Parts: sequence; C-alpha cells; structure tokens
Amino acid sequence: MKALVQLHSGFTDKPEPFKLETMAPYVALEEIAVPEPGDDQVVVKVAAASVNPSDVMFIKGMYGQPRREGVPAGFEGVGEVVGGKAAGEGLVGKRVAFTGTGSGTWAEYAITDASVCIPLMEGIRDEDGAALIVNPMTAIAMFGIVKDEGQKSFVMTAGASQLCKLIIGLAAQEGYRPIVTVRRDEQIEPLKALGAVHALNEKAADFHARMAEILREEKPRIFLDAVTGDLAATIFHAMGGGARWIIYGRLDESLPVIKEPGHMIFLGKRIEGFWLVRWMREAGEEGRIAAVMEVQKQFLTGNWSTDISARLSLEEAMEGLPGALAVPNGKVFIVP
Amino acid sequence: MKALVQLHSGFTDKPEPFKLETMAPYVALEEIAVPEPGDDQVVVKVAAASVNPSDVMFIKGMYGQPRREGVPAGFEGVGEVVGGKAAGEGLVGKRVAFTGTGSGTWAEYAITDASVCIPLMEGIRDEDGAALIVNPMTAIAMFGIVKDEGQKSFVMTAGASQLCKLIIGLAAQEGYRPIVTVRRDEQIEPLKALGAVHALNEKAADFHARMAEILREEKPRIFLDAVTGDLAATIFHAMGGGARWIIYGRLDESLPVIKEPGHMIFLGKRIEGFWLVRWMREAGEEGRIAAVMEVQKQFLTGNWSTDISARLSLEEAMEGLPGALAVPNGKVFIVP
Repeated sequence: MKALVQLHSGFTDKPEPFKLETMAPYVALEEIAVPEPGDDQVVVKVAAASVNPSDVMFIKGMYGQPRREGVPAGFEGVGEVVGGKAAGEGLVGKRVAFTGTGSGTWAEYAITDASVCIPLMEGIRDEDGAALIVNPMTAIAMFGIVKDEGQKSFVMTAGASQLCKLIIGLAAQEGYRPIVTVRRDEQIEPLKALGAVHALNEKAADFHARMAEILREEKPRIFLDAVTGDLAATIFHAMGGGARWIIYGRLDESLPVIKEPGHMIFLGKRIEGFWLVRWMREAGEEGRIAAVMEVQKQFLTGNWSTDISARLSLEEAMEGLPGALAVPNGKVFIVP
Repeated sequence: MKALVQLHSGFTDKPEPFKLETMAPYVALEEIAVPEPGDDQVVVKVAAASVNPSDVMFIKGMYGQPRREGVPAGFEGVGEVVGGKAAGEGLVGKRVAFTGTGSGTWAEYAITDASVCIPLMEGIRDEDGAALIVNPMTAIAMFGIVKDEGQKSFVMTAGASQLCKLIIGLAAQEGYRPIVTVRRDEQIEPLKALGAVHALNEKAADFHARMAEILREEKPRIFLDAVTGDLAATIFHAMGGGARWIIYGRLDESLPVIKEPGHMIFLGKRIEGFWLVRWMREAGEEGRIAAVMEVQKQFLTGNWSTDISARLSLEEAMEGLPGALAVPNGKVFIVP
C-alpha cells in the first residue's frame, strides 16, 4: 500500500517552528506492506484522513507522543473495516471514524483498536467522520469544563478555528456567551452569526483596552487558549478572580510570562492544560460514549458541519500540504 | 494608646521593592484612642505581635487586602482579652492568639472578632502564640496539599524560612521527603537535621543540574514556592508529569516565564496559588478547628518552636524594623 511514512523515532532535540514549511524532512511517500492487525484490532481501508495541528507537531517530534520510524503518520480518519481479529471481527463491513492507534491514517490502510472505532450513522459525511474525534471530542470536553465552572461567558483565542466554531455552536444552543479573538476582520461577523457575543481582532490598536472592558463586564472564568505567548498572557492578566487559563495549543512560539504572580495567590487564578488523550483516559468508558453520541447528534442535526478547504491525495500531500494548511477557515483532508 | 498607624488607604498604583527599606512612608507612631469593639468583638491588650512578609506587602499596598488610613497595621498577635461585647464577653481575662480583624496588632490594644481568637494552653510561649496563626496554619494547610497529592517527596523554595521549617517538622514526623532550596551554605545542615532529605544552595554553580537529578529520582508533584522568578520557573520546568507549582510568596521581583507551555498540555502540569485567607474560608469551621488543635499540639510537644531574632518596642520598630527583618533565620516581634 502507499503511505506517508515517518522518517524519525522519538522526540526532536531542537524545537522548530510550529508551521509546516515542507514535508520532506519528516515523512516520505513509500510503498509498504499492509500492516497486520493484532488481537482486538481492525484493518480500515481509509476513505479520508483529516490533518490537525497535532499531526504537524507530531511529525516534527514536538507532540506528547513519540514518533515511530517506518510507520505511517496521521492521527484521525474514516473508512471501512476490511479485516479484524477477536473483538475486531464484528466490525468488518462497517464504516467507522477512528484514530490510528496501531498505524497512522495517512495511508491506504490503517490499523487501530476495535474499542476506539466509532460506527457511523448514515447521514454523516465522510469528511465529518474523518474529523469526528480530535476536534469534536475536544469541543465537547472543553465546553464541559465551561459548564462545570458555571459562568455563562468564557474566552477563546483562535476563535475562527474549526474547533472554536464547534464550541461556539454548542455554546449558542445552551445560552452561553463566547468571547473570541481572531486575526482578520472578515472573521468577526461569521463568528458572531454562529453565536460569539464578542469577536475582537487581536491586531486592532484598541484590542487590549476593549478586551479588558469586556472582561470586566462579562466576568468569564474559563479561558480556552490555543495560542499562548503575550496575547494569552495579557488576556489572562486582565481576567478577574478565579480565572483558569487552560492551554491546549501553542500557535505563538514566544514563551508566556506570568504578569502578576500575586493574582495566583490573592485572586485564586490558575494555569492549566488540556489534552484530549488525558481527558479520554479520565472520562472513562461512560464519559467517552456520551461524548461520541453528542458528537454524532450535532453533525446529524446540522448544528455542526466541517468546513472543507482542500482534499489532497497522498501524492499531492507531499508537495501541497504546507500550502493547503496556510489557507484559513477550513479543514484539509488527505484522500488516499 | 500608642500604635503604628497606616498612612494610606487602598492599594498602591506603582509596585515597589518587596524588601522593607524604611517605615516612614507607610506607617507613623501615633497616640490614638483605644478603638471600641463592635458586637461579638473583643479588645486585646497586645503582649507581642509578629512581623510577617505579608505585613510588609500590606503596608506597601501590595497585599490582597486594602489598607485603611488611620488604623494600626499588623496582622497577628498574642495578648489578654480586656473587654468584649456579646460573644466577646466570655473571653475576657483569657490569653489568646489572634489576627486583628478590626484594628491591627502593632499597637498597645487591638480589636478582633471573638470567633478568630484562639485561647492558648498554658505551656505555649508568648512568641509562639504571637506567631501561631499565619505561619503555623499555612504550614498545616500546605502540608495538607502535599498529603492529599499522595507523593512522599515535595519541593520548597526559601527552605530556611520559619514557615518552611514548620513544614519540614511536620513532614519528618510522617515520613515525607522535603527537597528545599536555600541561599546560604550554612543553612543546609540545620535543615537536614530537621528533616529535609535534600537542601541545595540556589547560588551553587551546579544547582540546576543537581536539582534536575533529584527531581528525576524523587518525582515530587507538589512545589511550594515563596520566590517565583527564574529560580522557580526553572525548577517547575524540570519537574515531571502532574507537577503543581503552588505560589504563596514572591521574594523575587522578576516575572516568571512558563518555559514550556507544552508541559501544561501533555504532562498535565499546573500553576496555582495559595492564600491562607482563602484556605480559611474554604476549610470551614471544622477544618479551621482541626488545624488550630494540630498547631497547639506541635508547639506543646516541642516539635515546633519559633526562632526569635529580635524584639522591638513600637518606638524601636519605626527605626529598627527594616534592619531586624534583614537578619535571616528568625522571626521579629513587636512588643508594645
């Protein structure tokens, strides 16, 4: 089979830019044997694989899991189960969304555990299925943090990302008040139409003054941050008592400063992180199933829909993926 | 009565050094009327008042509570109750440790709520009584965080402080393993004798290398930090998965950097704060009483003892307090 195969093992020694500038140092298009499933595993014929920021960090050796040389990259995909062992046998013939636990999704075939396959309902598009886990599950999990905190308003950086749009969709349904930052003026109105109560361009001259004013009025406590750097540090500094800065991405490579450690002491503010892998572990079987049901419901009712910015074959991805990822407002798919 | 009276209200606009260089801009020695207790309050004839770092931050307008012009400073003291109203009447004649909720302890008389007075057992010295709340209650509360986390080893900066010595004493009793930093070589052996399993001079050339090695071996998750700045940021960075950096003081004025935001995401590390005032509120009546009993037990059994570095009258304090506070390894008392 053809696959985009990892060229390195483990983690990198020297951090690199987070943006993908070229594929060649990290993966190669190779012809390899279709991997064999182990017990309770399945082989999936991949119909589409999504490309997430975590994939880029992973192939560069800067993600929370080690690389494996010679194994296809790609965390997430959709496809038909064409073979399985033990618990996997019952899934043969089913169309499933999955994460490639045994071998990655940027390939014609992938291996995964039967337990992480999500059989898809009929009305779900392949592209929604291929982007059904990382972003949607993260959206459900992080919006759950907002709901548990009990404050209707909350803050998000990178508001125009697919993930933030999903969270805004959930929030609007339940009367929550997202305050989001964007990098382009033209992203403001679409996000407000989706349900953001405030959408501010982080490059505007009066950005920090307006944000501080909104924070004083809305008193959000949860700050879901994909950026870090000085933008996030300044927003967190302007937030009030009990604020929780929850870092789940690092679009800015500069290191954030804690601008007032006294706020941690006297105002009970906290800095934490979110990682879906840890959330899945802690949520347990029951929590995961509830989230999966919720995700499919959101796509079937049309409240959620994945914006598609490009579809690339494995061959096209080697040259074209960096350019495709640079286009804002949509998701890129690899279609083997 | 004579008192060291606050000269300002509210908070300062411009941050100042944390060290006390002179008293004159913040407090003045004045002759004022003995304040009247309100309902459920008492008047205490102050026998001794301790001086904590929080007092210095407070008179400079940099603490979590606003200053009140014309009211005596001083958070903590010991003395005899000489008058009281309603619930306060029953305490008249008793020797109590207390925090000055109505009017501060750097005065001949102070006002406080009957509910925060701790009647002292016979064997407790005045100096232990005058330093019975801020440090000892903080020690009990923060060691409680260590115990709740379940890991035997934990890290502390400013290891030679009175507070850290109390925590080391508690830890040694229960088989916990404190790892502490100090600023002077001669502090190392006394702290090891008390129960620190590792005591490192933060100024040693190999400090960070040795600390990293110890952290890898001991795998502590709780980091109780009174310093912040680059020292604390570097220690936190070297700690492993699940580490919690709990800031309760700021001896270093430089702002700490989060050296790897990815650690928050993938390793589940967190940055928080501790403030005794918040802990008292959240612990509830029962938690507070349990802590008070534990504190007196520790002093009576001799496991705890307050090191005294100076006793100053109100007059002497105006000139002498900055110099007395600069002497390491002991507590300064104002004896009205």
